[in-house]
Amino acid sequence: MTANDHAYREIGATTLLAPVPAVLVSCRGKDPDSRPNALAVAWCGTVCSHPPMVSISLKPSRYSCGLIRESGEFAVNLVGEEQCRTLDYCGVRSGAEEDKLAACSLSVRPARGLLCAPAVDGCPAALSCQVRQEIALGSHILFIAEVVAVSVREDLFDQDGSLHLERAGLVSYSHGVYQRLGETLGFFGYSVARPDTLRRRMEGYGRKEG
Amino acid sequence: MTANDHAYREIGATTLLAPVPAVLVSCRGKDPDSRPNALAVAWCGTVCSHPPMVSISLKPSRYSCGLIRESGEFAVNLVGEEQCRTLDYCGVRSGAEEDKLAACSLSVRPARGLLCAPAVDGCPAALSCQVRQEIALGSHILFIAEVVAVSVREDLFDQDGSLHLERAGLVSYSHGVYQRLGETLGFFGYSVARPDTLRRRMEGYGRKEG
Repeated sequence: MTANDHAYREIGATTLLAPVPAVLVSCRGKDPDSRPNALAVAWCGTVCSHPPMVSISLKPSRYSCGLIRESGEFAVNLVGEEQCRTLDYCGVRSGAEEDKLAACSLSVRPARGLLCAPAVDGCPAALSCQVRQEIALGSHILFIAEVVAVSVREDLFDQDGSLHLERAGLVSYSHGVYQRLGETLGFFGYSVARPDTLRRRMEGYGRKEG
Repeated sequence: MTANDHAYREIGATTLLAPVPAVLVSCRGKDPDSRPNALAVAWCGTVCSHPPMVSISLKPSRYSCGLIRESGEFAVNLVGEEQCRTLDYCGVRSGAEEDKLAACSLSVRPARGLLCAPAVDGCPAALSCQVRQEIALGSHILFIAEVVAVSVREDLFDQDGSLHLERAGLVSYSHGVYQRLGETLGFFGYSVARPDTLRRRMEGYGRKEG
């Protein structure tokens, strides 16, 4: 066996795509006085750049599925390692049976551009999302939504205003486990960048914590 | 300002969802003797569990978009840190102008369940995908595909047959940079697990390399 001739094992058709995002989706029904809810979502992705759009997939039985259908809104809250246990809790418990936000001592804040769904306070960033399409796909419903506003925690910006999301300690989900993002390996285009660009932009790369 | 009252900055509507997968998508036109191609995709996600389905979003101008439309197939190849530079190269160069696989010394292998698209040899895993729907979303076309087979590199399995994907050093993409997955923080359900389960399953957790 050479380096170009690896052995593989077939494991059957399954959802092994990894890493996927591990995010908290916050939502509320149409009544602005109703209780908001948050749920953990890993079946989530960016689906378009212009306009910016994301998708989330939910089982129709999930309590939040009804809230999102009712309001046509949700917020995607990025999750740092300090919210990982909360994320997991919001993934295994149902908002139909308890106030998960209260159980996790989470508070919400307004999400710009949305009338009903709030954002979760303390998370590194929140994407305000308005549902544009809903597609039934078997066990899950795919919600395709436009990102209408984004807010980012102030401590993730440099003094010159540049965003350092790598400082957020974001959490990913891979094959049943949560992993924190580690070492920064390069920037988009680094494989073809000129030496002076590499010197300038790779400064500090190779650090575990970004 | 208290721990429950964080300051946020609005940055406008943008594609800040993170981390997202950083994968190599391999494809080929209908002619089995035609040259295969690979491209980097970060706008990718799991969209359904049963049947297992993923989505990828491509600009219509990309060379591979035509190949995937022609064959109705692609393979999603997970990327470890040893393929990160190749991934970046396949993201900035076009298969219309060069043989990227040859330029990166990548070889392909058959992808079970697919007639045209191959998998990339050496990547930690490959998902064989058959396109089920195509949705135009502005700058990008969303391809929704069923995962019909999955192969995983043999060295990622334990002697007892359990898969340790956390050993693959998978790469994520966040706000323009590639980051390797690091410390394992927990397993799905760890926030509500019983002490004996935690003792058994969290063994080795907290390690940087998984």
